[in-house]
Amino acid sequence: MIKVGIYGGSGYTGQELLRLLLGHPEAKVVAATSRRFAGTPVSEVYPALSGRTGLVYTNDPPEAVAGLADFIFLALPHGVSMEIAPFFIRAGRKVVDLSADFRIRDGVTYEAWYGRHTAAGMLEEAVYGLPEIHRDAIRKTRLTANPGCYPTSIILGLAPVLRSRWIDPSSVIADSKSGVSGAGREPQIASLYCEVEGGFKAYKVGGHRHTPEIEQELGLLAGREMKISFTPHLLPVKRGILSTIYAKLEKNVSAAEATVLYREFYREEPFVRICRAGQFPNLSSVVGSNFCDIGVTVDKRTGRLIVVSVIDNLIKGASGQAIQNMNLMAGLPEGTGLPLVALYP
Amino acid sequence: MIKVGIYGGSGYTGQELLRLLLGHPEAKVVAATSRRFAGTPVSEVYPALSGRTGLVYTNDPPEAVAGLADFIFLALPHGVSMEIAPFFIRAGRKVVDLSADFRIRDGVTYEAWYGRHTAAGMLEEAVYGLPEIHRDAIRKTRLTANPGCYPTSIILGLAPVLRSRWIDPSSVIADSKSGVSGAGREPQIASLYCEVEGGFKAYKVGGHRHTPEIEQELGLLAGREMKISFTPHLLPVKRGILSTIYAKLEKNVSAAEATVLYREFYREEPFVRICRAGQFPNLSSVVGSNFCDIGVTVDKRTGRLIVVSVIDNLIKGASGQAIQNMNLMAGLPEGTGLPLVALYP
Amino acid sequence: MIKVGIYGGSGYTGQELLRLLLGHPEAKVVAATSRRFAGTPVSEVYPALSGRTGLVYTNDPPEAVAGLADFIFLALPHGVSMEIAPFFIRAGRKVVDLSADFRIRDGVTYEAWYGRHTAAGMLEEAVYGLPEIHRDAIRKTRLTANPGCYPTSIILGLAPVLRSRWIDPSSVIADSKSGVSGAGREPQIASLYCEVEGGFKAYKVGGHRHTPEIEQELGLLAGREMKISFTPHLLPVKRGILSTIYAKLEKNVSAAEATVLYREFYREEPFVRICRAGQFPNLSSVVGSNFCDIGVTVDKRTGRLIVVSVIDNLIKGASGQAIQNMNLMAGLPEGTGLPLVALYP
Amino acid sequence: MIKVGIYGGSGYTGQELLRLLLGHPEAKVVAATSRRFAGTPVSEVYPALSGRTGLVYTNDPPEAVAGLADFIFLALPHGVSMEIAPFFIRAGRKVVDLSADFRIRDGVTYEAWYGRHTAAGMLEEAVYGLPEIHRDAIRKTRLTANPGCYPTSIILGLAPVLRSRWIDPSSVIADSKSGVSGAGREPQIASLYCEVEGGFKAYKVGGHRHTPEIEQELGLLAGREMKISFTPHLLPVKRGILSTIYAKLEKNVSAAEATVLYREFYREEPFVRICRAGQFPNLSSVVGSNFCDIGVTVDKRTGRLIVVSVIDNLIKGASGQAIQNMNLMAGLPEGTGLPLVALYP
Repeated sequence: MIKVGIYGGSGYTGQELLRLLLGHPEAKVVAATSRRFAGTPVSEVYPALSGRTGLVYTNDPPEAVAGLADFIFLALPHGVSMEIAPFFIRAGRKVVDLSADFRIRDGVTYEAWYGRHTAAGMLEEAVYGLPEIHRDAIRKTRLTANPGCYPTSIILGLAPVLRSRWIDPSSVIADSKSGVSGAGREPQIASLYCEVEGGFKAYKVGGHRHTPEIEQELGLLAGREMKISFTPHLLPVKRGILSTIYAKLEKNVSAAEATVLYREFYREEPFVRICRAGQFPNLSSVVGSNFCDIGVTVDKRTGRLIVVSVIDNLIKGASGQAIQNMNLMAGLPEGTGLPLVALYP
Repeated sequence: MIKVGIYGGSGYTGQELLRLLLGHPEAKVVAATSRRFAGTPVSEVYPALSGRTGLVYTNDPPEAVAGLADFIFLALPHGVSMEIAPFFIRAGRKVVDLSADFRIRDGVTYEAWYGRHTAAGMLEEAVYGLPEIHRDAIRKTRLTANPGCYPTSIILGLAPVLRSRWIDPSSVIADSKSGVSGAGREPQIASLYCEVEGGFKAYKVGGHRHTPEIEQELGLLAGREMKISFTPHLLPVKRGILSTIYAKLEKNVSAAEATVLYREFYREEPFVRICRAGQFPNLSSVVGSNFCDIGVTVDKRTGRLIVVSVIDNLIKGASGQAIQNMNLMAGLPEGTGLPLVALYP
Repeated sequence: MIKVGIYGGSGYTGQELLRLLLGHPEAKVVAATSRRFAGTPVSEVYPALSGRTGLVYTNDPPEAVAGLADFIFLALPHGVSMEIAPFFIRAGRKVVDLSADFRIRDGVTYEAWYGRHTAAGMLEEAVYGLPEIHRDAIRKTRLTANPGCYPTSIILGLAPVLRSRWIDPSSVIADSKSGVSGAGREPQIASLYCEVEGGFKAYKVGGHRHTPEIEQELGLLAGREMKISFTPHLLPVKRGILSTIYAKLEKNVSAAEATVLYREFYREEPFVRICRAGQFPNLSSVVGSNFCDIGVTVDKRTGRLIVVSVIDNLIKGASGQAIQNMNLMAGLPEGTGLPLVALYP
Repeated sequence: MIKVGIYGGSGYTGQELLRLLLGHPEAKVVAATSRRFAGTPVSEVYPALSGRTGLVYTNDPPEAVAGLADFIFLALPHGVSMEIAPFFIRAGRKVVDLSADFRIRDGVTYEAWYGRHTAAGMLEEAVYGLPEIHRDAIRKTRLTANPGCYPTSIILGLAPVLRSRWIDPSSVIADSKSGVSGAGREPQIASLYCEVEGGFKAYKVGGHRHTPEIEQELGLLAGREMKISFTPHLLPVKRGILSTIYAKLEKNVSAAEATVLYREFYREEPFVRICRAGQFPNLSSVVGSNFCDIGVTVDKRTGRLIVVSVIDNLIKGASGQAIQNMNLMAGLPEGTGLPLVALYP
């Protein structure tokens, strides 16, 4: 039984870790910290968990958490993880960090998009925690940088055709749409119900900080540097990301052939499902689950590949994938504790 | 391993049975019928289940289903179950019927609200499947009439004070609000997104057919005949029922005392949670779970007890409770396959 | 042309006043204040108004606003209006106050529910601005206390039967459901999209501060003191209030007779519509309009009258009614600038 | 006063015409037909219009409607308008057709996407009713083909850069998202609340029938044939379309310069608003209005222009634009009856 500590346990991803780990047969949460809710039972902050856990949030320092737990999830704001992760690693604990702090291998790129890094020396050691791409490295690392939600949907959506060199890498456009939980639980006007419901908008057009992370991983798959256009939008749903991805085909293939390529590529994957040719996934088929569903077609009129990829941003895009990574790092079957099916309708 | 057949498996409650039984360690669905989707894989009708089940809907007659399955769920429209249930019972199968056909013990009352009953002789044998109230009888029966969604929320909300004779039975008003999935998956204008979203309305005021079922069970608890006012409303959410219940107190008690009464009454129940005094439950704490959450207070200014009770109408209000009943009828631990926590946010 | 000043113009009710007054042929907004947005064009804070107004929010003191405007709307938090209203009245301006500060005639009751009043001497002069009940007094006053949103729906829903002495005044229960805009635009966790969407809850059960205002006005209609049970709920919609109201009938009447009574009572009213007997209003038929739609029936089984009443909380429940009051106070036709029809679907 | 007849008046666009024309000072609806609701008052089918119109739906033949009305709106399914429009034109009535029947000038293209045309002889006479592009022709025509909702958002979003030859016409990708009212009011599973809410999906990827209409108009603006990638998505909102449009720049310009170009192009337009450079529009700023709001930027990293364009699909995308066209055809000021501001929040 893995003893798990969650540092920063009261935001949506922290709560989702708690919820999912309740159903994990080989892990038990022994500590969850929260500055705001220290001293308060988890079940008071999240009444949905009432009757399922007696855990109380603490404001314990890393030393105390390391004393209790073997395995640490950091569900902290960007810039805070880098202050704390090195301690846990030095203390011999394994860490999955859900922030962006350790996702970018290149320190210069990191600082161009995020500002100064105080633990840049660990960037190289950290493994980008997308199991479908980096499974073996994840199995061996002490520090996994859990991918961003948008990047997960886009990288999984393009990996087969980039590896196979079917598309022009300079032609990629990712038009992504995310539910509101991606903005977290901090109160702000833009996340209010009355501001979101019935609305829809693009934001941070051409400047979202997930861009370098996406380009790093797509570039590794393509074997060359990549620049993409990435436009995030705010969708009036609680959970889920759908990315519609466009690229110029360099090979004359049909939708059916593209679908076969994707099926082959993901044949062994427990959490990627490929739609039949000409079918596209609905967000609601994955919300509540750790699946990434992908549909692919070819627009013969324009010679473009069009891919649609959907995930639950809090599960495959955050806490579910973090547990998938924990399973790998701990030598457990990868899907342990994740037999989730979307809540539909 | 129980071999389960679902008769009428393609509506929302049928789909929910399929989804929940995927996670049940002691049951396996061996047949699911659907006239509309016969021959189509379940995972095409409900892509959320893709990769989790290879089941194909059939149009098999009861004889064929009885040949495959030990245990039958009937998820059929009202009036259809009564045509089919007797066959399964005679064939020695155990049955949970999710329709209203066997909920009313009194044939005259049944016919006043629903019309003619073609299997009235079985009304007496059927047990009303609310485990918190009728657990022992459910354990022994062959035919359980699974409660309606509104009745489940209202009966659980009032049972403690009716048994204790704290309220005036003639004073009960239940103001209930239900999500849209309660209307099923049949296409109709009133269930269209554009008709529901942003709206809210009462319907069947003073005449909803759950009324006699509620009154029957409240009357048994009170030990006298009861007439209540019951007003259902259509809430712009997919799942969930919240009932706000008012009754005149005949005893001078505080909110804290009422809360203690409820806690005592439901002390051993795995699926009923009582809020702290002065706290009230949110629908979103139970949607996706088999819980019924209840909050209770006393309005000292008017001498009224006010109870708020919430459930997921498709789970505790239908398919989850049906599985809870199956567990009891099969001698399994009651919560088997139901370790569900709400999907929040 | 009335020169209008809005004190506190950047919340939802302030914005709604601005929006509605753009379409008012006899009024022009000359000043709108906002501490948070002073110096910012209204059309930047509310891009929906872009191209329709060049107004810029100011942080002007009352003196400056009084110098520009003849007529003042106070769209301020409770407790702030009372500090400012007296100045405008002394300066000879007419005032509609949208806060609760001047709604309660009885200072003792006010202080029991809200705390100390710093302008209690003006409570008696202020007129409760529900035109359907107090039209003549509104025409003559300098200071109108614009009703609360919940009270508007409940008082209009009960006025006919209270005036006619058809019901037992001690038996009234109002189960009300409000959209989220009623909570205003201040960022707080409870108003976040992810906390509200898909959820539903009761709040301030037995203790909401609209209670004394409702009881005051119902008592005036009934000719005796009244105590009611009032339960507000938070509905996952942006706008709208629906109140379901229950009362014991003291007269043996039919739904048709009750409907006739309501039609007669509101025969001349431009903004109250009575549904046909047995029909009930949907929130979506009034959202975007100044209408109050009412449906009424009799539950013969229990001897209760059931009334359902709907309004748009920001229009008939706030800014639209405030303009209706301005029209009356200014001697204009009551419906000027309010020819609104719900945006449907 | 224009006497207006609406042929097909009970769908969402028909209802929206009725609603908007209630506020039109120079037009009066004298007839509205509906096969389904013939004999029923409009206000029963759409209670939001109760008290505002006494009109009753009829099943009158074109002859009868032509006898009452000077001006005809056809709000009929595709393929039906072409059967009826010729009669009204021959009878000397002016017609705005809201279907796709007369939008495509080239009969061969029409038949490739839609099938046989029974009034192909009139295709040439019909004017594509986008006033910002074809105002003078609309003023003179008897038959206006009202644009599709997606095309309106995309054509207005690209007109300035196509006219100015700033972009590579072969590089255009339009990723569009539409609210559910675009699917009409026919009951179908895919439009049910429970199927839509919380979900999001692409549909008809690479094959939507608005494609030829978009390409026709973009081609006219660009002065050469065009092929675009167009992907529609179903957004969980009732109203509104947002199109995110990508194109390769052939000129080295900044976001500020692009914004100036757009402002110049639409300088005189009453219903097009351009956001400040770097700002993007929200659907909720136009829902309820006849505005098209556009934001534009340049992604320097990839050399792409990115345009975001929003409209209310039932107003600027259908009935509002139809009235704008009627105003032009009737010699009225273009904005008559359309002083609409979005209902916000």
